[in-house]
Amino acid sequence: MANITKKVSWSSRADESGPAGEGTPLLNGSEQPRLSRQPSEGGSIFQIGRLSTVDLEEEITSDEDSLRGRPKEIPHNEKLLSLKYESLDYDNIENQLFLEEERRMSYMGFRCLEISRWVVCGLIGFLTGLIACFIDIAVEELAGFKYQVVKENIEKFTEVGGLSISLLLWAVLNSAIVMGGAIIVAFFEPIAAGSGIPQIKCYLNGVKVPRVVRLKTLMVKVCGVICSVVGGLAVGKEGPMIHSGAVVAAGVSQGRSTSLKRDFKIFEYFRRDTEKRDFVSAGAAAGVSAAFGAPVGGVLFSLEEGASFWNQMLTWRIFFASMISTFTLNFFLSIYHNNPGDLSNPGLINFGRFQSDSVAYNLYEIPLFIAMGAIGGLLGALFNVLNYWLTIFRIRYVHRPCLQVMEAMLVAAVTATVSFTMIYFSNDCQPLGPEHTEEYPLQLFCADGEYNSMATAFFNTPERSVRSLFHNQPGSYNPLTLGLFTLTYFFLACWTYGLAVSAGVFIPSLLIGAAWGRLCGILLASITSFSIWADPGKYALIGAAAQLGGIVRMTLSLTVIMVEATGNVTYGFPIMLVLITAKIVGDYFVEGLYDIHIKLQSVPFLHWEAPATSHWLTAREVMSSPVTCLNRIEKVGTIVDTLSNTSTNHNGFPVVVQVSGSDEPAKLCGLILRSQLIVLLKHKVFVELARSRLTHRKLQLKDFRDAYPRFPPIQSIHVSQDERECMMDLTEFMNATPYTVPQETSLPRVFKLFRALGLRHLVVADDENRVVGLVTRKDLARYHLGKHGLEELQLAQT
Amino acid sequence: MANITKKVSWSSRADESGPAGEGTPLLNGSEQPRLSRQPSEGGSIFQIGRLSTVDLEEEITSDEDSLRGRPKEIPHNEKLLSLKYESLDYDNIENQLFLEEERRMSYMGFRCLEISRWVVCGLIGFLTGLIACFIDIAVEELAGFKYQVVKENIEKFTEVGGLSISLLLWAVLNSAIVMGGAIIVAFFEPIAAGSGIPQIKCYLNGVKVPRVVRLKTLMVKVCGVICSVVGGLAVGKEGPMIHSGAVVAAGVSQGRSTSLKRDFKIFEYFRRDTEKRDFVSAGAAAGVSAAFGAPVGGVLFSLEEGASFWNQMLTWRIFFASMISTFTLNFFLSIYHNNPGDLSNPGLINFGRFQSDSVAYNLYEIPLFIAMGAIGGLLGALFNVLNYWLTIFRIRYVHRPCLQVMEAMLVAAVTATVSFTMIYFSNDCQPLGPEHTEEYPLQLFCADGEYNSMATAFFNTPERSVRSLFHNQPGSYNPLTLGLFTLTYFFLACWTYGLAVSAGVFIPSLLIGAAWGRLCGILLASITSFSIWADPGKYALIGAAAQLGGIVRMTLSLTVIMVEATGNVTYGFPIMLVLITAKIVGDYFVEGLYDIHIKLQSVPFLHWEAPATSHWLTAREVMSSPVTCLNRIEKVGTIVDTLSNTSTNHNGFPVVVQVSGSDEPAKLCGLILRSQLIVLLKHKVFVELARSRLTHRKLQLKDFRDAYPRFPPIQSIHVSQDERECMMDLTEFMNATPYTVPQETSLPRVFKLFRALGLRHLVVADDENRVVGLVTRKDLARYHLGKHGLEELQLAQT
Repeated sequence: MANITKKVSWSSRADESGPAGEGTPLLNGSEQPRLSRQPSEGGSIFQIGRLSTVDLEEEITSDEDSLRGRPKEIPHNEKLLSLKYESLDYDNIENQLFLEEERRMSYMGFRCLEISRWVVCGLIGFLTGLIACFIDIAVEELAGFKYQVVKENIEKFTEVGGLSISLLLWAVLNSAIVMGGAIIVAFFEPIAAGSGIPQIKCYLNGVKVPRVVRLKTLMVKVCGVICSVVGGLAVGKEGPMIHSGAVVAAGVSQGRSTSLKRDFKIFEYFRRDTEKRDFVSAGAAAGVSAAFGAPVGGVLFSLEEGASFWNQMLTWRIFFASMISTFTLNFFLSIYHNNPGDLSNPGLINFGRFQSDSVAYNLYEIPLFIAMGAIGGLLGALFNVLNYWLTIFRIRYVHRPCLQVMEAMLVAAVTATVSFTMIYFSNDCQPLGPEHTEEYPLQLFCADGEYNSMATAFFNTPERSVRSLFHNQPGSYNPLTLGLFTLTYFFLACWTYGLAVSAGVFIPSLLIGAAWGRLCGILLASITSFSIWADPGKYALIGAAAQLGGIVRMTLSLTVIMVEATGNVTYGFPIMLVLITAKIVGDYFVEGLYDIHIKLQSVPFLHWEAPATSHWLTAREVMSSPVTCLNRIEKVGTIVDTLSNTSTNHNGFPVVVQVSGSDEPAKLCGLILRSQLIVLLKHKVFVELARSRLTHRKLQLKDFRDAYPRFPPIQSIHVSQDERECMMDLTEFMNATPYTVPQETSLPRVFKLFRALGLRHLVVADDENRVVGLVTRKDLARYHLGKHGLEELQLAQT
Repeated sequence: MANITKKVSWSSRADESGPAGEGTPLLNGSEQPRLSRQPSEGGSIFQIGRLSTVDLEEEITSDEDSLRGRPKEIPHNEKLLSLKYESLDYDNIENQLFLEEERRMSYMGFRCLEISRWVVCGLIGFLTGLIACFIDIAVEELAGFKYQVVKENIEKFTEVGGLSISLLLWAVLNSAIVMGGAIIVAFFEPIAAGSGIPQIKCYLNGVKVPRVVRLKTLMVKVCGVICSVVGGLAVGKEGPMIHSGAVVAAGVSQGRSTSLKRDFKIFEYFRRDTEKRDFVSAGAAAGVSAAFGAPVGGVLFSLEEGASFWNQMLTWRIFFASMISTFTLNFFLSIYHNNPGDLSNPGLINFGRFQSDSVAYNLYEIPLFIAMGAIGGLLGALFNVLNYWLTIFRIRYVHRPCLQVMEAMLVAAVTATVSFTMIYFSNDCQPLGPEHTEEYPLQLFCADGEYNSMATAFFNTPERSVRSLFHNQPGSYNPLTLGLFTLTYFFLACWTYGLAVSAGVFIPSLLIGAAWGRLCGILLASITSFSIWADPGKYALIGAAAQLGGIVRMTLSLTVIMVEATGNVTYGFPIMLVLITAKIVGDYFVEGLYDIHIKLQSVPFLHWEAPATSHWLTAREVMSSPVTCLNRIEKVGTIVDTLSNTSTNHNGFPVVVQVSGSDEPAKLCGLILRSQLIVLLKHKVFVELARSRLTHRKLQLKDFRDAYPRFPPIQSIHVSQDERECMMDLTEFMNATPYTVPQETSLPRVFKLFRALGLRHLVVADDENRVVGLVTRKDLARYHLGKHGLEELQLAQT
């Protein structure tokens, strides 16, 4: 019983000669844990684990030091799979403690739990709505102030000459504001960069992206997004709302803040990955809902991008959170706009109301819509390819925080300069109508009572520009203005996405699309003699949908979001058509923007199904083996050594039992996680050999919950030499009924089980119920369908 | 190796003394198969398996005869679980044949398959749209003709006196038309009764409801629904569209029609439950989409009510089918309405456009909406309870086809009489405005230039009545009219649902709700001095949503359906609020209407999660045991005897293997289905003992597909005495990697695995990998949460 670590050394990899032999991982243990602490200087959107001295919450682990000496490998292509990401446990750990608690709980107890789930979702919605409201008001006020200052300056210098001073003012203002946003992101919380949608997608997929749902991330995200929008970058504030909602959800549902060191002693039942992940879906939905005023769209977004197992009750809760979120935003914005109770501002972006008579479309317009969808798909693919190259460039050369801040400032200055130049050289003057609603009409060189049309597009927050493109009267823009705007804004937006600032890509995409869409409308109207049907606003909407669909490749949720944001169902069908066309065309060339970024970060992302041609692979080829197993009653020293072994760093260990007195091989009897062992070691749940009874107090489920989710590293736990000789009884704590598959199971079957149940470790057993291998997320994510059939990704430490 | 049937006789039920002991099933074998052929005289919505002499397609099995002698048990309470329903296999049978085929298939092969899936979905959408179009036009024309005849008659007799003749004409006309519909349903295809939504829900849940997706069912459904709507019953034609779409999907996806004996030799790959079920989801969605012009709502309906495993690609295909369906309907209806290319008729029911200015709502109206939601929940619960009692009465006393036809005729006559009486005694005359769009304004005793307001509600197809209630000018109805209408229509609709006619409950619910909603609006306007905000049409819409939500208890999908049918997103938030309130209030009293009917039919329906308090149950208590196992190389005689055993009638058999020459107990090595064995027996895949090699041609996957889904009964297969002595090698055909769980697995865990993967048989194995039990659908569906905690349903043969 005292054998150290049972190594079941059956391995089939040697005698199996499949293509799986190529690219065999360097390190074939089970899932990799806390290696994520290794300082990585990768400058792209994920930027996980960079340490900063200000970071007080970071648990400094000593394996960092042991790894610091290694040469830094920066993943820079999509053929790698990083081992630094842990998985989430979407499968409940059904050990004795858990089952006892569940069995003790009465029916009323479960009712109360259900009610608290609804309360939490309500809170998530409310807080997400408030944050959205705060961002909106802050951006509105600050941007208003900025544009006012610049406008006055321009007006002053238009008369007296010397507009270069205005340009300088504008560029410096923008750069300064953006610098603020970039500094907090690059130095304090790199994970807050970008829209956060890829990260949330990964989280919902079951990948534990470090630090992604922390309070600090939320703070940086909110301030960062205000800075980037006010700083005039080609970005939107909608994408980051999804990330913000997710953080709110992860925080509220736990009833405590580890960062603030406050524990409200509520919602303790929800302190595990299963429950938390459900709430995070609700938070993401609430975020979408607040951003676009689209509660149903939010639910669909969460489901389309995230959830794997559709549960009706969960869906209703998500729906509730979304509803509350959009209502809260609506309510507070109505107060801010001095119109309490009006409820006409359902989201951060509002596409405005389309008049019912102008929105009708005809059968012969459908081919036009499909063609526009194809254009959107093409332009989207171009955008994604350019951004892919740019991101690789950034990962290689722009990975220092100060460089990142400088790049952001440069982009801000260039954006201002380009905008100014475009406005300066534009001679598209439009009459300033009495009912005209431009917020900051720039007269510039136009005659009195006229304004510069290019400025409505450039000298404005992107949300307002989109709305102008949708609703301004036909003739408000001339085709050249729109063409030039599309061209410049396309490249600006492409350059901007991936900077170290918090910002979303939704609005810029919509803006580009609206511009070329309106252009299409104008051209169509000029070709055909009867111009009534070719309403430029309508084509702007279709173009916006096409461009956004071509970039992000969502269909169902995006249709609903667009319909809800437009407030009009009439366009539902054309938008659907356009989005599906854009997706098909775009997918022919390259993946969606978010998927590209996920791939570039080498995240072990599990798609919906195993690759189609993977039926010839079985669990035997896929699994990791040999597996480090533990005995049901194991020596403490062995456990400490196993956990401390930095070369394997397994996260889950099958527990085996030897039939006493027999020579038969040990049989599988359970599965235990590293985190559980750590808690056991911390509470010294040892059986001393001298006495036969336990000396420690009985461990409760609460002890595990209190340690969740930041379990201390093994190095922080001191175990004396005497204690090392004690034994530990794992019976109560292990999951006694882990899922198993036989070795002959085909990869799609393993994949389906793993994905549908959200597993983290799947034990492969032979027909004697002995452990022969372990399948983890990276073993499945490794196979993907490339251009030339099934490919296997290489595993990398970073 | 020659032992007959390995009975693993380990059973824990005797020594476990949980409440599971109560209500132990009479028949503890695995899932029950073809007992469904037993003639059941149950007269309610399912009415499965009644034999009629005209039914040529029914495979007459001889176990009917053996059962015919038994006393008929008619399930009449919800505490029973019927054993007559088989499960569908949502889990692929991964045997060697299947794996070989998959491995042979190239990447291009899979691409082609994917493309054919899209093609099939497109076809499903197109055909469903056509059917909807046909129903709509038929109803429009026939109802128009009927109302014209009755109107002329009434006008004639209003002047000369003797309106009782008009009443008689109306009642007789209605009864005659309804009789036609009821006869085909009651005598030819009882499964076509009702809306078909409960049946489709069961199908998507994984229950094989016999005859539900046959061509004949579709024919009867379509003709039946036309008759019932034209016959003036309080029914809608929308619900049956969902069933029709599902049948179309099941037919098209198989590339053949067993009824018509045509095999087009296409889509052979899709001839299995997994693929078929996906297409049926698409068909149901296309049906909703055509019915309400709500493609997104259709997708959500399919997902909310049906699918268990959310797959993005599947969702997109479903979405595509929905889109095509609504477009087809729209296109053909636009031609029918002499307005080709107009595309303004997206669904069978169109709520009409609400004017943007009248639709706005204020913050202080929200409590009103919530109150209306609560009223809807209460009224819905009342409706459901009344209908529940009525259904039990029907099951007991009205179960002969001729009685059912007579009841339907009676309802039709009563509906006409009540309508006539209401119109006759109503003195609510409204001026016939110039822009008035009533189709059949009845003047009756009103002055010239006026019409009878009650008649707009009663003397009209329900769809038109709903639209009138939504859009007629304030003042078109007086409160008394609306009150009386609500009252009578409520009871009529309640009586009508469950008749042996094809009809839906959506429209009657909307109509009841619209009536009392409008009443609320009028009362509110009269209480408060400023009546602008209390637009009666708006309150009619809210009332309609509340009533429908209270009856069927859908939230997310219904919100989207209502929004899409209204064509206006403004009401999204109030509708959501109302639906959630209605659901919460209604659920407090009684379940939704569809769930009640599913329960009354004792269908083994699996809900989303295991009952909350079921953690103390383990696989050991839940499973059926002993299990009939087969050897991997088994004697033909044994197999025939096992399959012929009518007292057990198992559908799946674990395959075990004895290590040759050892005394160890046999180990699990696979799982084989009754249907597979039948095909093997039919093709005589025997190994003669005299020769060592196989004598038969190698069996292909195609042989199994050709037999799918109507596998012949064992009695129809002749096996000679010589052949009985042969052996059968099951190795190639069994699923070699069935999912297994240990005996200690808790019920929620078993449930999750079973539900998430759509299993049919789950083997329970001990730690030596020996079979100790089998978990099937009925073992899990048996446990449910009643008023007093966990309850166990009794199993019944009928």
